Amino acid sequence: MKKGIKIATIGGGSSYTPELVEGFIKRYDELPVKELWLVDIEEGREKLEIVGNMAKRMVKAAGIDCEVHLTLNRREALKDVDFVTTQFRVGLLDARIKDERIPLSHGMIGQETNGAGGMFKAFRTIPVILDIVKDMKELCPDAWLINFTNPSGMVTEAVLRYGKWEKVIGLCNVPVGAVKSAAAVLNKKEEDLFFKFAGINHLHWHRVFDKDGTELTEKVIDALYGPNADPAVVVENIKNMRFLYEQVKNLKMLPCPYHRYYYMTDNMLKEELEAFHNEGTRGEVVKRIEAKLFELYKDPNLDHKPEELSKRGGAHYSDAACEIINSIYNNKGTVMVVSTRNNGAIDDLPYDCAVEVSSIIRAHGAEPVNFGKFPPAQRGLLQLMKAMEELTIEAAVTGDYATALQAFTLNPLVPSGDIAKTVLDEMLEAHKDYLPQFFPKEAAVH
Amino acid sequence: MKKGIKIATIGGGSSYTPELVEGFIKRYDELPVKELWLVDIEEGREKLEIVGNMAKRMVKAAGIDCEVHLTLNRREALKDVDFVTTQFRVGLLDARIKDERIPLSHGMIGQETNGAGGMFKAFRTIPVILDIVKDMKELCPDAWLINFTNPSGMVTEAVLRYGKWEKVIGLCNVPVGAVKSAAAVLNKKEEDLFFKFAGINHLHWHRVFDKDGTELTEKVIDALYGPNADPAVVVENIKNMRFLYEQVKNLKMLPCPYHRYYYMTDNMLKEELEAFHNEGTRGEVVKRIEAKLFELYKDPNLDHKPEELSKRGGAHYSDAACEIINSIYNNKGTVMVVSTRNNGAIDDLPYDCAVEVSSIIRAHGAEPVNFGKFPPAQRGLLQLMKAMEELTIEAAVTGDYATALQAFTLNPLVPSGDIAKTVLDEMLEAHKDYLPQFFPKEAAVH
Amino acid sequence: MKKGIKIATIGGGSSYTPELVEGFIKRYDELPVKELWLVDIEEGREKLEIVGNMAKRMVKAAGIDCEVHLTLNRREALKDVDFVTTQFRVGLLDARIKDERIPLSHGMIGQETNGAGGMFKAFRTIPVILDIVKDMKELCPDAWLINFTNPSGMVTEAVLRYGKWEKVIGLCNVPVGAVKSAAAVLNKKEEDLFFKFAGINHLHWHRVFDKDGTELTEKVIDALYGPNADPAVVVENIKNMRFLYEQVKNLKMLPCPYHRYYYMTDNMLKEELEAFHNEGTRGEVVKRIEAKLFELYKDPNLDHKPEELSKRGGAHYSDAACEIINSIYNNKGTVMVVSTRNNGAIDDLPYDCAVEVSSIIRAHGAEPVNFGKFPPAQRGLLQLMKAMEELTIEAAVTGDYATALQAFTLNPLVPSGDIAKTVLDEMLEAHKDYLPQFFPKEAAVH
Amino acid sequence: MKKGIKIATIGGGSSYTPELVEGFIKRYDELPVKELWLVDIEEGREKLEIVGNMAKRMVKAAGIDCEVHLTLNRREALKDVDFVTTQFRVGLLDARIKDERIPLSHGMIGQETNGAGGMFKAFRTIPVILDIVKDMKELCPDAWLINFTNPSGMVTEAVLRYGKWEKVIGLCNVPVGAVKSAAAVLNKKEEDLFFKFAGINHLHWHRVFDKDGTELTEKVIDALYGPNADPAVVVENIKNMRFLYEQVKNLKMLPCPYHRYYYMTDNMLKEELEAFHNEGTRGEVVKRIEAKLFELYKDPNLDHKPEELSKRGGAHYSDAACEIINSIYNNKGTVMVVSTRNNGAIDDLPYDCAVEVSSIIRAHGAEPVNFGKFPPAQRGLLQLMKAMEELTIEAAVTGDYATALQAFTLNPLVPSGDIAKTVLDEMLEAHKDYLPQFFPKEAAVH
Ligand SMILES: [Mn+2]
Ligand SMILES: [Mn+2]
Ligand SMILES: [Mn+2]
Ligand SMILES: [Mn+2]
Repeated sequence: MKKGIKIATIGGGSSYTPELVEGFIKRYDELPVKELWLVDIEEGREKLEIVGNMAKRMVKAAGIDCEVHLTLNRREALKDVDFVTTQFRVGLLDARIKDERIPLSHGMIGQETNGAGGMFKAFRTIPVILDIVKDMKELCPDAWLINFTNPSGMVTEAVLRYGKWEKVIGLCNVPVGAVKSAAAVLNKKEEDLFFKFAGINHLHWHRVFDKDGTELTEKVIDALYGPNADPAVVVENIKNMRFLYEQVKNLKMLPCPYHRYYYMTDNMLKEELEAFHNEGTRGEVVKRIEAKLFELYKDPNLDHKPEELSKRGGAHYSDAACEIINSIYNNKGTVMVVSTRNNGAIDDLPYDCAVEVSSIIRAHGAEPVNFGKFPPAQRGLLQLMKAMEELTIEAAVTGDYATALQAFTLNPLVPSGDIAKTVLDEMLEAHKDYLPQFFPKEAAVH
Repeated sequence: MKKGIKIATIGGGSSYTPELVEGFIKRYDELPVKELWLVDIEEGREKLEIVGNMAKRMVKAAGIDCEVHLTLNRREALKDVDFVTTQFRVGLLDARIKDERIPLSHGMIGQETNGAGGMFKAFRTIPVILDIVKDMKELCPDAWLINFTNPSGMVTEAVLRYGKWEKVIGLCNVPVGAVKSAAAVLNKKEEDLFFKFAGINHLHWHRVFDKDGTELTEKVIDALYGPNADPAVVVENIKNMRFLYEQVKNLKMLPCPYHRYYYMTDNMLKEELEAFHNEGTRGEVVKRIEAKLFELYKDPNLDHKPEELSKRGGAHYSDAACEIINSIYNNKGTVMVVSTRNNGAIDDLPYDCAVEVSSIIRAHGAEPVNFGKFPPAQRGLLQLMKAMEELTIEAAVTGDYATALQAFTLNPLVPSGDIAKTVLDEMLEAHKDYLPQFFPKEAAVH
Repeated sequence: MKKGIKIATIGGGSSYTPELVEGFIKRYDELPVKELWLVDIEEGREKLEIVGNMAKRMVKAAGIDCEVHLTLNRREALKDVDFVTTQFRVGLLDARIKDERIPLSHGMIGQETNGAGGMFKAFRTIPVILDIVKDMKELCPDAWLINFTNPSGMVTEAVLRYGKWEKVIGLCNVPVGAVKSAAAVLNKKEEDLFFKFAGINHLHWHRVFDKDGTELTEKVIDALYGPNADPAVVVENIKNMRFLYEQVKNLKMLPCPYHRYYYMTDNMLKEELEAFHNEGTRGEVVKRIEAKLFELYKDPNLDHKPEELSKRGGAHYSDAACEIINSIYNNKGTVMVVSTRNNGAIDDLPYDCAVEVSSIIRAHGAEPVNFGKFPPAQRGLLQLMKAMEELTIEAAVTGDYATALQAFTLNPLVPSGDIAKTVLDEMLEAHKDYLPQFFPKEAAVH
Repeated sequence: MKKGIKIATIGGGSSYTPELVEGFIKRYDELPVKELWLVDIEEGREKLEIVGNMAKRMVKAAGIDCEVHLTLNRREALKDVDFVTTQFRVGLLDARIKDERIPLSHGMIGQETNGAGGMFKAFRTIPVILDIVKDMKELCPDAWLINFTNPSGMVTEAVLRYGKWEKVIGLCNVPVGAVKSAAAVLNKKEEDLFFKFAGINHLHWHRVFDKDGTELTEKVIDALYGPNADPAVVVENIKNMRFLYEQVKNLKMLPCPYHRYYYMTDNMLKEELEAFHNEGTRGEVVKRIEAKLFELYKDPNLDHKPEELSKRGGAHYSDAACEIINSIYNNKGTVMVVSTRNNGAIDDLPYDCAVEVSSIIRAHGAEPVNFGKFPPAQRGLLQLMKAMEELTIEAAVTGDYATALQAFTLNPLVPSGDIAKTVLDEMLEAHKDYLPQFFPKEAAVH
């Protein structure tokens, strides 16, 4: 593999691409990316051209030997690549906005990776990723698939279970942020701390250890969520990450930000409904931010990642992807938090499902650090959510209506009963164009 | 053991007692109960006398050789008994009404064995049952404890795990009803069908097999919940047992009636709120029924179980208790559905927890029929609920506020967030007199 | 199914057949076998005719309405049957004698269901049973397969795992004998005792309970193996069933007779070598007994099972088969010990393997009584043996030499090392004609 | 902890001590050992003085600031230490020689960590280690216990399970040797390879990966055990490490050298019997080597580890101990192979047992890399051996004769039957002085 590296990025027209390119540029000495193929679909042609040209300017400004290719032909790009990264969004931000607004219009959580919205994102995304895997088997059978399309955990599990593709790693930037905020409140260097994460994507917990072996987990809980938490120290963005102190303290582990949807459901719903009725959902906000970003990207003089990208959310996502690729390529043995096959690392979950755990990253892949069993509070929620994920993935693959309804019934963010069916039906209809598995030929919704 | 049998019934002043007495009378030939000790507390003295005298009349009318004793001295009653049955209700119906009305007043499910209400019933009941077990170790170390105080599954688990008492069986009348309704819609005799139940108390699923080996489960699902379900055939009482047909059909198992709280949460909540604002909660209705029942029981000419008792709910409960006792005493090998230690009968749950499963009942106890693994839809909910039970039991034993809050957070019928804490605090205050473990000495609520 | 029953018996020329026929005759009222097809192969034509004609005489003498058919055409017999029973022996007793003599000639245990011999019996038998299953799928897809060909557990597992045939039950007469000997030494009626068996075929343990719930296991251990064991009470045949008293007492469960091979390996080997050098191995003895039996069977006046059959070994085997069929046909719910899929009944073994456990037998099949976890002494040996079985079955199906060698290495009755390979090679050569999977086309042994 | 380090070495009079001292000297810059307490018992006073004085000379020659203390007072040494290392041998080499010769005199494997000998080493050692732990709780409750007294895995499990002491790591030099031999035959640098070990002490398997992610395991199997293995490349010492090529190839993992006892039992027994009847057992050889070593150590001019120590066996043992201490002290995150609590890292073994697995070593302890499930060939042997270990440890703690006999019966290197009891009895008698738990007061052997 120690020749130059060829990478294909599916969804290359994404606003994230500059961070990815920056990540490759700054690692070029140890990770010589010689070809970067940015792939998109007809619908995204304009964005691909804007961001692709900017990528070319960045590479040129950096003075590295790397060709950036823009293409709408995925198969051309996949040919003989070493790594495929995925950051596509089926149906673009308009689909996300529907994922948010439809549930909210029925008084339930509307969010792009949780609740009904996250399930529909899985329904739209999984058939596409399985199609990519089909192409990879033919065109680049030795490549690694580094997925950061959400819902990242379910996508990874679909690739493993239904795609029968082993060389996949799922990524998320949440653990990166958790490490940063713990280091900040402890006033310690990240590299002096050891983090042990376990759970599933957007639903994991972690413990923190100091370099002398002392566990600092409760100290971080206190600093972030305790009665005397100092907002000045707490990093921006998580200021509104409200939890009940007694409850998270009782966990003896740190929750992830998405736990707010499960631990503070009522409060989160109120916040979301407020936004829904006023400035718009997060998807609508992001759409406005993106429009501005693309205006910036058009500037033929811009040849580096602009500051404004950080507002987009998803910071560190692409950088984490570069670091994974680097660790694999250089067999570094870095400990990172990734979605990978469980194989018993978490005893409470099925052996062959995908989990998100601290793992050693080497050339042969991710080796999870063993976690073992969770105490009941974590275990119960985690097991429920994994079962919900299994059903969601199955429905995404089979297009079976009853399985989708079952998954809706199980999801704790979807009130069960007639309302679940009503929302399911409405969302199926709204996303019809991206759900061929549920609408074979001309068949109408249930 | 083949001498005459001595039984102590804790909560002997219950309105259920006549069914229990009737059960013993009709089994007298094979199950010669020579002494029945009805035990109650000072608060229940009047009810004990009314129902106890009625029990005496019943026994006399039946012409059997059985002494009925009424006592407020539990230890006197427990001395050398063969079986202890428990049907007490800490705080009487007034506590139940609080369990229902407080959550409903905050817009959440209020029910006596589910949600916040069920958890508080556990908080009040578990310390008392552990105290009974302590007495049994001293006074009747070879006796069987047949518990039908709710929440029956959690009470059984508390006895096993914290009471370290092995000879306990938990009971519920729900499986009896499920058998009857399946037989009714299939128009077959109960004894020609085989039922395989598994889950936990008030959250189990079952499959039905015909005498030629055909599985009839889906047929029963169709008959009870399908688009063409015939209300005339469906037995009274379950007419309002609404489910989403596609969802229960997808289970390939029959849910229990309490599943409505989890599968039709939104609908159930609306129904409950309607009652809350109008005729009153179930507890209030039952209180009125009971008042009438006790008026009947006062009649010195009444010497048999009156028809009106069937409206009380809980029919077949006491009869099931008699049948368990009979199966143990006579080593009958009957297959019944009971709460007992898991020991791996259900692979998805902890080895040492209590489960409710079809079991062979013999003199040495309950031998569960192996069940194995559930599919994901059942598994996820079941695992969540068991974790919630573990936390609830732990909080009931330790009186730890954070553990109680954790259990509230996990319970799918309690919206998580600030509202959970508010309701927890309000209920702790309301039930203060029955929760010494949460209020040691003079300490105020959190 | 309540028409008359049609049964096909593969290996119908076996000397066991009269017991089977007797079993059907005596159950005729509740189990009306209208057609019994005795099937054998060309090699066994003579025996089939002798024993088949005897079967016809038995049926006639009994005056029941049952046709006995003799055929060498297996497919003709399988057509539309309700039950298939298997009692064939690939390679006849001569193959058994090789299974015994070759290992013994190298100083290791030579026995037909244990050690190298049992593994080769599996190698010869499994391809044939899978071929039968293939026919059954086509000719009698609703039939039950009742297997009593040894090694019964491995054959059952092969049918489940590789044959993908669910309606199979494996049988053995060992548990029947264990029940009889426990009842004898306790001087109690079998029906007053409850037995809980668990393990795998020829390697299971059991506990015994009295009708008042008292566990009698240790009492039976003492009576059978204790220092004061009374040979007069101990039933014939098990008098030489030597165990170390302290060791079996420590098990707190009763071992099965075949445990002698694992618990008393050294002593058993000495006994076998003695026989090997003198009167011949058990196979040679049985061959002489069988010759005499078939002489008896030839007698045109003999129309009932002769006493002499009991010396053959395997008594109660066929009767157990009749009882299983009866329990299935009449949905009796009898508790019997059978080989069936584990599904977690024994936690220490793989979920999908075959185990031999006390099970409720109903029309829809065998429902194992849950067993749970064994203590370490039982667990370790059981897990080793199951792994050995898995490898043996895999080798039997694939004909892979290295897998067979691996199984030999794991088997505790085969000393590992060069000697294992030597014996494997010699036995492969000796049984070559019955092992096409190991000798595709003309390829020589490894 | 970043003050100077204080270490106590129990069994400080061992011939290994110079390697340990050398290890501390060469790491002094990052691992500043300021006090080294060499502890021994009266019986070992002379050896302690010889080797202790040599240690003092080594430290002096190295010019480091480290005090070496010699003491027979264990409690004085343990006071406030940071690390305790254990390398004691109860009963000295004479006990080892009995562990070897008694079994061999009965024709069974006689080896110090396997078979009957290893079990007796556990019987003698475990009570002493538990006594050390008792002192540690009082005198150095924050210290780490680094055990390299054999049987290292059982000793570690005893400390965890019965000593209730979490801060323990068990060590062995076998993985170090395996890494060296794989690197040698592959002609690659150790640091370019990744090794994944799992199993239990002296019974683990490993896989090898190249720095480009390619698995090299089978290549190493071929190089070491294949028909074309080149003795010139194969490192000394393992030249006689015979395995059956087909069998180890089928494992798809590399066995450890001690696997020869289980995979080549017959051959190993012959080799041992040959030595037993000629040059003497390994213990006798080692005794002669040690005598010479101590002669060398007496030389007042010797101030460095002599070459001759490498013949002693156990090379790299002490160096591994220094490296573990270094990794803990400096929170290095090195991946090493250690005995630690399973917690599900190996799914096939009990959750709370000790396993030997590749682990990340940090200041808070060993974090095992998850392994998951073994294929059946490894699984069966591993599960058997772990059960045998559990029984051995239990017998070592309780002194229960029947449990010891059970462990003997299970051990595959001890032929079961009367001979097992005979050898057990003879060894109990021979080691009587070191087995107070089996001989309370004056009670005679069974
Ligand atoms: Mn994410
Ligand atoms: Mn109930
Ligand atoms: Mn058998
Ligand atoms: Mn070692």
